Amino acid sequence: MTRPVSERNGGSGLKKYVEMSKEELSALKKELEKQYEETRAKGLKLDMSRGKPSTEQLNLCMNMLDVLHGEAEMISESGVDCRNYGLLDGIHEARRLLGEISEVDPDNIIIFGNSSLNVMFDTVARSMTHGIMGNTPWCKLDKVKFLCPVPGYDRHFRITEFFGIEMINIPMYETGPDMDMVEEYVSKDPAVKGIWCVPKYSNPTGNSYSDRTVYRFAHLKPAAPDFRIYWDNAYSVHHLYDDRQDFVLEILAECEKAGNPDLPFKFTSTSKISFPGSGIAAVAASKANLDDFRKYMTVQTIGHDKVNQLRHVRFFKNLEGVHEHMRKHAEFLRPKFELVEDVLYNEIGDLGIGTWTKPRGGYFISFDSLPGCAKAIVGMAKDLGVVLTEAGATYPYGKDPQDSNIRIAPSNPPLKELEEAAKVFVLCVKLASVNKLLGE
Amino acid sequence: MTRPVSERNGGSGLKKYVEMSKEELSALKKELEKQYEETRAKGLKLDMSRGKPSTEQLNLCMNMLDVLHGEAEMISESGVDCRNYGLLDGIHEARRLLGEISEVDPDNIIIFGNSSLNVMFDTVARSMTHGIMGNTPWCKLDKVKFLCPVPGYDRHFRITEFFGIEMINIPMYETGPDMDMVEEYVSKDPAVKGIWCVPKYSNPTGNSYSDRTVYRFAHLKPAAPDFRIYWDNAYSVHHLYDDRQDFVLEILAECEKAGNPDLPFKFTSTSKISFPGSGIAAVAASKANLDDFRKYMTVQTIGHDKVNQLRHVRFFKNLEGVHEHMRKHAEFLRPKFELVEDVLYNEIGDLGIGTWTKPRGGYFISFDSLPGCAKAIVGMAKDLGVVLTEAGATYPYGKDPQDSNIRIAPSNPPLKELEEAAKVFVLCVKLASVNKLLGE
Repeated sequence: MTRPVSERNGGSGLKKYVEMSKEELSALKKELEKQYEETRAKGLKLDMSRGKPSTEQLNLCMNMLDVLHGEAEMISESGVDCRNYGLLDGIHEARRLLGEISEVDPDNIIIFGNSSLNVMFDTVARSMTHGIMGNTPWCKLDKVKFLCPVPGYDRHFRITEFFGIEMINIPMYETGPDMDMVEEYVSKDPAVKGIWCVPKYSNPTGNSYSDRTVYRFAHLKPAAPDFRIYWDNAYSVHHLYDDRQDFVLEILAECEKAGNPDLPFKFTSTSKISFPGSGIAAVAASKANLDDFRKYMTVQTIGHDKVNQLRHVRFFKNLEGVHEHMRKHAEFLRPKFELVEDVLYNEIGDLGIGTWTKPRGGYFISFDSLPGCAKAIVGMAKDLGVVLTEAGATYPYGKDPQDSNIRIAPSNPPLKELEEAAKVFVLCVKLASVNKLLGE
Repeated sequence: MTRPVSERNGGSGLKKYVEMSKEELSALKKELEKQYEETRAKGLKLDMSRGKPSTEQLNLCMNMLDVLHGEAEMISESGVDCRNYGLLDGIHEARRLLGEISEVDPDNIIIFGNSSLNVMFDTVARSMTHGIMGNTPWCKLDKVKFLCPVPGYDRHFRITEFFGIEMINIPMYETGPDMDMVEEYVSKDPAVKGIWCVPKYSNPTGNSYSDRTVYRFAHLKPAAPDFRIYWDNAYSVHHLYDDRQDFVLEILAECEKAGNPDLPFKFTSTSKISFPGSGIAAVAASKANLDDFRKYMTVQTIGHDKVNQLRHVRFFKNLEGVHEHMRKHAEFLRPKFELVEDVLYNEIGDLGIGTWTKPRGGYFISFDSLPGCAKAIVGMAKDLGVVLTEAGATYPYGKDPQDSNIRIAPSNPPLKELEEAAKVFVLCVKLASVNKLLGE
């Protein structure tokens, strides 16, 4: 039995809050409130809410803006002038590069515009109006449901909410979603049309799916012929360490082996590799699925930005170039994650008022407070000038049934600011926990 | 009474085919067939089908790839780092530049990705699933109709066809669509939700809407509250001449004056200003309409490519910069249009077997053959190695009721190839016309 992510421990050697008497808690509260007022007086303005790369990371990519010179360099491998119209699937060298990142053959990938989120939105939108591979358009069905591993990525949930799709919470463990529940829902309910997955360095837990989880995904027997796994491979090469990295089985190959080649849509983008918002996105899937994509793409656009595709290929060259670049990213990201983890460990490690994940990659740390405290913590932090991701955001409809999960995003602020923000955060966790235990 | 575009004349001084005897026609046919075989023997491979800028035009923009250097230059006017996430509406300086091109205030414009076609598709898709400004989603209506000025842009028609929207042909005149018909349909039928317009240097006729036409558009009294004018301002600054330019009244201002501020969606892009496929697109509309756009944009994407927006602003600087650039484009385009017009005029000007438009801007010449000849002409040209836009493409469902309209795209081939292609074209027009008149 795998423990849920939220049951992992820290360690600080102090007395647990739950073991304190009412008097001890009241005294503590007084002390914390003093610190709170002192902090507020500082008038801080800090942000730990957004999974944004830092300026230092962006600077690593500046040469990408300077790799294309002269007419001859604008021609793709296959002889296409990348400046002009055409090539719906993207240039071959970009399909190869993103294929390498996605661990699939270039023939199994289509390059899109600057945002994989946009491609996911469009994929759901098209399923609503036109259906998947000849199946009934979802807008004509009474009920469409998606499984949502929680905590998860708020923007996934907002897409399905926008289209009126019912979302079902599935607990996330260190090994991935609760596969017993997933199998149960997928095999029995034909209204279940999809599941949102961030298989590697998941948003927000940072956990990666185990081989067994991927195997079980590949062997699903969906009741709905148009059930698909929405496999958002957002952090595939986003390791924090050279010597400790997560590996996730390649879902397309596993599904193919299991006789389920059409099950997965695998999304990826360079948003957190090159420039967020100015990268390139891609979908890897079976030929039948990609042909289905092409049917609407050919009506929707003449083609995506091939000059930007070329720019990425010329800059990164190949997968090794990407890894080399991401190792430089990690040098900026690693100390930030370690700093936040240190502050959490030192300040509240053994207080029994919170647990958190220690990811080896990705962009987030997932924090779980005592039940019923997350909203209070985020509110207090805001009051002290530290913006956190809204409590509840990691759950469908913004509703965390436990009111305990908070997504921490350490990537963007400079180290000094991050340290200050993390200290404010633990102060708020302490105070909110004391208030909770005192029944206030 | 304005004459339909297709009734304009050329002039070559030869005997009209319709006035020829059967014997004369048969003799002519023999001669033309000889030329046809001689031409086929050449094994040509030419293309007059696509509205693509030429390599020379693309070369004018190469410096755009080299305008951004160093961190400091990546910061927008408002202090935003364009390399990172954010700014759903686009950077202010891009809104100003595209606002100038669109003749609207920066507040009335949102910058999108690389394709205005994509934005039009999304606008229709969202109307299907969510409706416009609180109105019933179109997918819940029995019938949705669009008015389609013909001949028109095939990709507009393919969007509405894709969503199962019924398309109604509206004749295009030199002054724009038949406004009597437009007013009749729009005011009486609540199922009519939109009209596709290319108001300036229209695709394919090259005609521009008269002041009176725009005025009548602005004063429409739609039966449907969610009727919108889909105003595709694709060729707003695409003049062929300095001294002979078309001007079109600004539709947002006219609609505002008429008390109909929410009627128009005005689309534009730099696809045929900078690089096709690597430009930036925009929508200008009322605040209420743009807020409605934002509601789905905020779910669909974190933002569009701001680095590319910045690149465009740094390169063009302002509207005068755009005009200066487009004058250089015109130097390449003008001789091509004039060459095709010369070949048509000299070869079939007075034969009574075809009429064509003589646009002052845009990317196309619209040719009308004798009824029932267009498919044969395009087929013959293909046989001789000259690719033309598919006959029928300028009509909804690909069905030209007269089988007479052919879109000629002179922009892309070098002059020498273009001359050869144009000569092949007139040969095919002659032979197809003779066949038709002989009843073959």
